[in-house]
Amino acid sequence: MSPPSAMDIEIKAVTDTSAVAVPDPLTVNGIPAWREKVAKMPTGVAPECSSDMWKSPACYTKPKAKRFDHFLSQEAKSRKASTLKSAAGYLKNPGIISLGGGLPSAEYFPLEHLELKVPTPPGFTPEETQKSGSILHAGKHDIKEGKSLYDLEISLNYGQSTGSPQLLRFITEHTELIHRPPYSDWQCTLTCGSTYAWDTALRLLTERGDYIMMEEYTFASAAETAFPLGLKALAIPIDAEGIVPEGMDELLSNWDVQARGARKPHVLYTIPTGQNPTGATQSAERRREVYKVAQKHDVYIVEDEPYYFLQMQPYAGEGAAAPPPPATHDDFIKSLVPSFLSLDVDGRVCRLESFSKVVSPGSRVGWIVASEQIIERFLRNFEVSSQHPSGISQIALYKLLDEHWGHTGYLDWLISIRMSYTNRRDALLHACEKHLPRDIAHWVAPAAGMFHWIEVDWRKHPDVAAGKTLEQIEEEIFQSAIEQNVLLSRGSWFKADKSATMEKMFFRATYASASFDRIDDAIARFAASLREQFRL
Amino acid sequence: MSPPSAMDIEIKAVTDTSAVAVPDPLTVNGIPAWREKVAKMPTGVAPECSSDMWKSPACYTKPKAKRFDHFLSQEAKSRKASTLKSAAGYLKNPGIISLGGGLPSAEYFPLEHLELKVPTPPGFTPEETQKSGSILHAGKHDIKEGKSLYDLEISLNYGQSTGSPQLLRFITEHTELIHRPPYSDWQCTLTCGSTYAWDTALRLLTERGDYIMMEEYTFASAAETAFPLGLKALAIPIDAEGIVPEGMDELLSNWDVQARGARKPHVLYTIPTGQNPTGATQSAERRREVYKVAQKHDVYIVEDEPYYFLQMQPYAGEGAAAPPPPATHDDFIKSLVPSFLSLDVDGRVCRLESFSKVVSPGSRVGWIVASEQIIERFLRNFEVSSQHPSGISQIALYKLLDEHWGHTGYLDWLISIRMSYTNRRDALLHACEKHLPRDIAHWVAPAAGMFHWIEVDWRKHPDVAAGKTLEQIEEEIFQSAIEQNVLLSRGSWFKADKSATMEKMFFRATYASASFDRIDDAIARFAASLREQFRL
Repeated sequence: MSPPSAMDIEIKAVTDTSAVAVPDPLTVNGIPAWREKVAKMPTGVAPECSSDMWKSPACYTKPKAKRFDHFLSQEAKSRKASTLKSAAGYLKNPGIISLGGGLPSAEYFPLEHLELKVPTPPGFTPEETQKSGSILHAGKHDIKEGKSLYDLEISLNYGQSTGSPQLLRFITEHTELIHRPPYSDWQCTLTCGSTYAWDTALRLLTERGDYIMMEEYTFASAAETAFPLGLKALAIPIDAEGIVPEGMDELLSNWDVQARGARKPHVLYTIPTGQNPTGATQSAERRREVYKVAQKHDVYIVEDEPYYFLQMQPYAGEGAAAPPPPATHDDFIKSLVPSFLSLDVDGRVCRLESFSKVVSPGSRVGWIVASEQIIERFLRNFEVSSQHPSGISQIALYKLLDEHWGHTGYLDWLISIRMSYTNRRDALLHACEKHLPRDIAHWVAPAAGMFHWIEVDWRKHPDVAAGKTLEQIEEEIFQSAIEQNVLLSRGSWFKADKSATMEKMFFRATYASASFDRIDDAIARFAASLREQFRL
Repeated sequence: MSPPSAMDIEIKAVTDTSAVAVPDPLTVNGIPAWREKVAKMPTGVAPECSSDMWKSPACYTKPKAKRFDHFLSQEAKSRKASTLKSAAGYLKNPGIISLGGGLPSAEYFPLEHLELKVPTPPGFTPEETQKSGSILHAGKHDIKEGKSLYDLEISLNYGQSTGSPQLLRFITEHTELIHRPPYSDWQCTLTCGSTYAWDTALRLLTERGDYIMMEEYTFASAAETAFPLGLKALAIPIDAEGIVPEGMDELLSNWDVQARGARKPHVLYTIPTGQNPTGATQSAERRREVYKVAQKHDVYIVEDEPYYFLQMQPYAGEGAAAPPPPATHDDFIKSLVPSFLSLDVDGRVCRLESFSKVVSPGSRVGWIVASEQIIERFLRNFEVSSQHPSGISQIALYKLLDEHWGHTGYLDWLISIRMSYTNRRDALLHACEKHLPRDIAHWVAPAAGMFHWIEVDWRKHPDVAAGKTLEQIEEEIFQSAIEQNVLLSRGSWFKADKSATMEKMFFRATYASASFDRIDDAIARFAASLREQFRL
């Protein structure tokens, strides 16, 4: 995993003479020139690769990440490199005939070409794509025929667990552009989606009996991934900006190993942007405070960030239109709240990234960013488990993101998604303002994500005096909404600590999936349920 | 997971009147008529489904599988149904507007159509496909437009962990056609490949400290999946037909819990057909004997079967041409050695199936077949981990296998693969016969798979008298072959029990990946290495 020659020269230049200028950070427009300088794209079957092949010289001026050996599980520590994947190293010898690995010949892949019809920027809507969309073509032998750096012969065969170098390059550049991690030895690797990456992270970083920290309301599946591994959730208090750092500090400072029957928790799972289910987004300042608490107590942070690019325009208020989109790519990137990765001077963050919310969940392609030590341990797991995400998904994403859109087109797409979600959120908020009974329903306008978290003041329910509980009322409202033909999610589904007592009652509404013109109707139906249940 | 109405009626008919005829088993030609009778294909987003929707009435005349609660791990036992996936059940209500699940709207999937160019039977070669191949088209809204049962709107979104009903139907029918499991409540579910399914099986069926049984030489990655979980391999003796049942029985009968520091092993991992690395294929009789030993000692069998359809024509001998292909689909199916699944009266087999060797490894789509109890536990794991294999892979496979080829075309394709591998194997064997020094190199012609296992009589090496070890000689031959520009795999890489002493020395050669006309040259190079090393 050593950087290639072009990079070696740059690093040397930086290290050797103190007079030399610090290399400029990578920019969207600087990528084509930088690509010219780096090592040639490996285009063989299942080639070894790593992000080090494409990171710009600016990365290497930064200190290295800390080591986190003390966090690695027994399982993670005992993993060795795959014998058979290692043998693939010999395939680099020119002229070698392989009777080695059990890779089928491309003759037996029954697919001669694959074509995709995709949007041509800036015409991103389905209607515009129908009219002005581009046809992308991937042939079986495009590499040999000099037509592309990636083809079906390669993508339909086995690959390495990093993912294909073709897609990993794009992802590495994108990561550097957006996050500029403040340590040098960060790397990316593809995953089969963030839920899978989280499952693997737990097996890497925890032992049965451990507590993990989660926002007190959290993504139910993330908690359900953890519990069967013998893990318990330590619910961290939250407010409208997500994790309350003082609350986290207090829980950790007063941790009683005896009373808890477990060592002090060392893993924090957080969804910092457009949190699921609360919709809360941690501000830059809030993130810095949380990171400080993590440093103080030596906590490893797993930031699950599917909604990062669903940061929306500021909410303009009741009935008002959204402000215009960011004018430039730079403005757009600057408008984004800094990630934990971008604050991570220690290398104590593993960022889970996903195409699910911005391209397609069905692709089952995501990626993670972390220090080389941690990525290497993930890879040792992946190569004897999932191996790598679908090569068909990978070539589709490569054709779209790298060959067709490039980084500029992808940023345009993300801005377009931002504006669409802004419109959807605004439609939902306007509907809530119009229909919901304000004396019992309260909310904060979400700044990012897919979710609107509606608090309903259950103590105002007429049957509370007669002893009806929060849980009963929540169930009755949920069922009444189903009868009105609208589905919302119950707040209690998202409790991190299932044994915790709820003081407040919530419902989660998403504006992501319903067709735009039915959002108003859906909220009207929910409002009818509330009025009926509360006899208003 | 209850069978649909059409099936209920059939079962009822069978149960109610003792005079009724036993339903005929499903046949290739009977599938279209049977499809007409079963429940409508669910075509919504992430619909629930199970193999029960498509199994023919003949399945339900058989007894149910035994339960294997006593084999389930602590992790497996503590898994519950995913809260959020369960809520998807409400989406069946007609007219319901979902503000529930965080599924993105198809508007934001930047793919309007996908096209594939694939072989038209019987023109299966790449050259024929170039000329006479068919173009398959998948649009975004084909379902709504009545053009197909599957489209991009659905395949690019989240799905259930069973896989899409569209592809699961084909796989279920295929499984019934080929294996006819002898118990009623078998089911299939899609996986992200067999290595992943094996990793999950271990987490489902074993605890840290357990031994698992494996062929004494086995797929190195399968062993490397197991060791970090704290498992040890119990190496089962093998001969030219694979597992020696008496050897397995003896090891289990004499198991000493105290001396071993572990409970008696209850999981057997086996590659019954074209075993990796030895190429051995267990005969029908051998499988029956192994199954009996498994029953006697209450052992659960995981059969890993990527090479099942790489069963070849009988080897006709030195210089002779292969016999002609099976004349009919029936002849072809009858020519296949029975799987453990087809012998599994107890439901104690989990069959790992894969498209990797017969369609494309890059698709990362496989499936498993087991009793409902075991499949259900797999699903509880998948839904909070990998979720499901790529929807892009799934729609590509559906378009090819179901809409275009159908079962008849797929069987034609498998027969064509069989003949190609027969030719490749024969080329390798002819090269071995021509080039290898017969006084030190010995082999058995493989009947299936990708691998040829060559024993080299290391004791005839001139330096053995001076104390050179098997390991040293193996390493020197391997390196010498690399210098000759040919890569083979070292036998020692495949030892299940890394601490076992090797009596014999082997090299594994695959005829799967090298271009056909280089196989002779590759073996000539290996022969040169052997002669050089043995100073012949």
